Formats: sequence, C-alpha cells, structure tokens
Amino acid sequence: MSGHKYHFDVTMSCSGCSGAVNRVLTKLDGVSNIDISLEKQTVDVATVDSLDYDTVYNTIAKTGKKINSGKVVE
Amino acid sequence: MSGHKYHFDVTMSCSGCSGAVNRVLTKLDGVSNIDISLEKQTVDVATVDSLDYDTVYNTIAKTGKKINSGKVVE
Repeated sequence: MSGHKYHFDVTMSCSGCSGAVNRVLTKLDGVSNIDISLEKQTVDVATVDSLDYDTVYNTIAKTGKKINSGKVVE
Repeated sequence: MSGHKYHFDVTMSCSGCSGAVNRVLTKLDGVSNIDISLEKQTVDVATVDSLDYDTVYNTIAKTGKKINSGKVVE
C-alpha cells in the first residue's frame, strides 16, 4: 500500500465554497483523489507518498475556509 | 497620495465565499482596506505602496474563487 489519506472538517456554506476547495486541491501536485461533502462539511484527500499533511492543510487554509479539525487517516 | 487601489471581479456565491476572500486579504501584510460586495461580485483592495498587484491577485486566486477580471485603479 502506498500514499496517504487525509481528512479535514471544513466550514463550507455553499457549493461555491466546496468548489473553491476542490479547485485548489485539483491544482496541487500529488493529489490522487478528492472527496468533498458539503452536507457533512468534510474534505477527504488521497495523495502520493511524497505529499505531506502540512502541505495539504496549508493549501486548504489558503482558501480562507475555516478548518475545524484535520487528521492523517493513512 | 500613496498606496494602491486594486479592483477585482470575483465569483462569490454566498457569504461564506466572500468571507473567505476577506479572511485571506486581512492576513496579507500591506492591505489597508478591503471592500467586498457579494451583490456586485466585486473585491476592492487598498494597499500600501509596496504591495503589488500580482501579490494581491495571487492571494485571491489561492482561495479557489474565479477571478473574472482585475485592474489597478490607482
């Protein structure tokens, strides 16, 4: 098994908010899958091995959305 | 007179979107005033002399919001 899975709880009010998070993660090198739920207020990101948690965290933080919690799942 | 004024047309769907843009600009050194209109879909930023257009543009772009146009007003 390789790669990481990161989970974040993010305040997103509308599809414009979740779309913005999706857009920045799509542009981030090493992201292999993105699963965003506006209903659950969650962002799940799968990445290659070399992409670390802090980089993903900071990319989401730069959207200006509030990250309520985050963790490394794998 | 000193400082700059920059104007951007940004797609923002809700107050969560405009709040996110406001949050990242508030954190940017050299920003002296921010005027965001969700109704008009506009972001007006006043800055000190040393803060250039590209830096402000890139900060907004990193929110994942679509910038439809932007210009230096002053």
